[in-house]
Amino acid sequence: MPEGNLLYAQSGGVTAVINATASAVIQAARKRKVRVLAARNGILGALQGDLLDTSGMTASEVKQLAQTPGGAFGSCRLKLKTLEQDRDKYERLLDVFRANDIRWFLYNGGNDSADTALKVSQLAAEFGYPLTCVGVPKTVDNDLAVTDCCPGFGSAAKYTAVSVRECALDVAAMAETSTKVFVYEAMGRHAGWLAAAAGLAGADKDDAPHLILFPERVFDEADFLARVEAVVKRVGYCVVVASEGIRTADGRFVADAGGGKDSFGHTQLGGVASHLAGRVKDVLGHKVHWALPDYLQRSARHLASKTDLEHAMAVGRAAVECALAGQNAVMPVIVRDADTPYRWHVDIAPLAQIANREKTLPKGYIRKDGYGITAAARRYLQPLISGEAYPSYASDGLPNYASPGLHARRKRG
Amino acid sequence: MPEGNLLYAQSGGVTAVINATASAVIQAARKRKVRVLAARNGILGALQGDLLDTSGMTASEVKQLAQTPGGAFGSCRLKLKTLEQDRDKYERLLDVFRANDIRWFLYNGGNDSADTALKVSQLAAEFGYPLTCVGVPKTVDNDLAVTDCCPGFGSAAKYTAVSVRECALDVAAMAETSTKVFVYEAMGRHAGWLAAAAGLAGADKDDAPHLILFPERVFDEADFLARVEAVVKRVGYCVVVASEGIRTADGRFVADAGGGKDSFGHTQLGGVASHLAGRVKDVLGHKVHWALPDYLQRSARHLASKTDLEHAMAVGRAAVECALAGQNAVMPVIVRDADTPYRWHVDIAPLAQIANREKTLPKGYIRKDGYGITAAARRYLQPLISGEAYPSYASDGLPNYASPGLHARRKRG
Repeated sequence: MPEGNLLYAQSGGVTAVINATASAVIQAARKRKVRVLAARNGILGALQGDLLDTSGMTASEVKQLAQTPGGAFGSCRLKLKTLEQDRDKYERLLDVFRANDIRWFLYNGGNDSADTALKVSQLAAEFGYPLTCVGVPKTVDNDLAVTDCCPGFGSAAKYTAVSVRECALDVAAMAETSTKVFVYEAMGRHAGWLAAAAGLAGADKDDAPHLILFPERVFDEADFLARVEAVVKRVGYCVVVASEGIRTADGRFVADAGGGKDSFGHTQLGGVASHLAGRVKDVLGHKVHWALPDYLQRSARHLASKTDLEHAMAVGRAAVECALAGQNAVMPVIVRDADTPYRWHVDIAPLAQIANREKTLPKGYIRKDGYGITAAARRYLQPLISGEAYPSYASDGLPNYASPGLHARRKRG
Repeated sequence: MPEGNLLYAQSGGVTAVINATASAVIQAARKRKVRVLAARNGILGALQGDLLDTSGMTASEVKQLAQTPGGAFGSCRLKLKTLEQDRDKYERLLDVFRANDIRWFLYNGGNDSADTALKVSQLAAEFGYPLTCVGVPKTVDNDLAVTDCCPGFGSAAKYTAVSVRECALDVAAMAETSTKVFVYEAMGRHAGWLAAAAGLAGADKDDAPHLILFPERVFDEADFLARVEAVVKRVGYCVVVASEGIRTADGRFVADAGGGKDSFGHTQLGGVASHLAGRVKDVLGHKVHWALPDYLQRSARHLASKTDLEHAMAVGRAAVECALAGQNAVMPVIVRDADTPYRWHVDIAPLAQIANREKTLPKGYIRKDGYGITAAARRYLQPLISGEAYPSYASDGLPNYASPGLHARRKRG
């Protein structure tokens, strides 16, 4: 048995499959006889020494984890600053690591978390503490650099495409005497990946979604409303997918209803769909409905993409292998070998290439008119929503998910 | 082959399984060698003589219909008034029926539609025109009288319970450093059936949803906010499910943002969740998220309840049998024989007992404190979300749904 413990922590917004990564980490570590501790509420638990021992979980509990959405050990929004600014916190982390004999640290998150993992590895080196830090990719935003895609995105993308196709069928049925315009709000602060995924719901020009609003394009209300009206005239109804992060020419978010800032310093968004719906109603006079799925889109494990689930488990396993092999300051990433039929493998990339970067939609993925996706986008997106990976259901009609707090009650020692 | 044609029409808000009823109607009629015409956009198409001949649909298209949400032939919101007020319209209907040799009329809708079907049968009798009118139950609101439940409700209920359980796992993971309160808005103007179904997501006192707001209870903001705060203190986070139709003591809808009226004369609602979220943020100071699934909840065929699907197809078959047997002015209804294990059968009820009535939640289904459901409610609701009935998926990761307009292009004659 290798000496020391492996610490696993979840960070940032959770996904439908981040627990599948956790499950794969625990399974891979058990095979190598390594004990996995999990930080409660991500880096916060690591700072407070609040670590859970996963050794007590039965094999069936570990398996159940893989079909449970959310973050079983708790996640957090807490970004450590530079080594200079937050030196006391980084040193506190190393103290906790020493006290718990942590030799491997797996941080499962996005670009902020990659940055934290990188800095922890630098401080450990400075202090001569033997620690291997590995980032594990996760984010529904799909905005991590280097990796072809991010575990969590494919399932949210599948939810988005299926939901938009379903509500489009609803609107199509009602349009003659009732709702003519439907607005669906997709997550995505700066990158329109999920809005783009909605484009998979239709193939022809007159298929829904008829208009997609990307944060990569400036929002022009007059042009938008004119296009809505044209679609209603031509098709009879119009389905709009709007990214939460769209902005007008002066750089202001269309939805500044929320107006606050979260602890990462990002603007707290919300209300793009209701705003657009209001404009459609007031200016064009059409009956309009809108949907804001919010957390539902990133926790819809009931509609997970099989491809996404496989990615999530593969990066978990690879992270354990990297760590135990002493590959420090790296992240397992997804490499695409072919679009059709889709083939992929896992490679290893330096955290320095990933930390704090943000991958927006390539220009070639947005249609020239700015309101739809291209064939290249379809080729990229389609494999990521492929396959179904249903959770098992109990006889009560609900999925067999692990309860929140189940693992939280199992404290270390 | 019996003489004449059968006319089928869809009415009001569509559901995940109303097309399953349509599919069952067509299949049952084909077995009896009866031709089924479908009115485009419900009663509107019947008034305009815009009828589609379903004879050209292949068996596989009819089967696909059963796994497609929305209303394949188009639905409508158009309520005929009394025989005196709208006499010209009712007579126009009879003219269209005569011209197309319609001997059986199946109207698939809620209590308004039951009323219309009843009046059409009365007028036909007055004119001595041989017509059998049969209502077919459908509504996600579950508010029809006599029937134990309404096809469409079970699937929306399953979507609601599963979605609330999923987003609760998300919030539980984020609560320590981020979102502490989540508000989910459920459909239901006057009856809190879907809000109640959310209660199935949790069993224990501290399970989500922690607070359910029913339209059957007066909304008291101060009491609500105090309870949210208490739950956050005790559990660490609070998941609220709010019915769109909640009202304050003076009878005003909490969400009067929309403010308009739909063509049925109902107030057009929306925005309860965003309003409550704003109050939680401003008064309690917690970070809050909210979701408004809107049409997603009633068109989520991807998460249909198997029980609901079976009900939807059974009432379709029974309606054809009733009609061909000459049982006039009736509706097939679901009768519950036992809760556990769940057993049911289809019976026939007079439309006069169903037209224009509204079944609200029994008092015994709402917990004494007004914010949750009772064991009796669970016994009633649980069987209705039981079983999964997934649509087939194509290799592109999307369900094999029929396209909107596929059948609309197939005009009669």
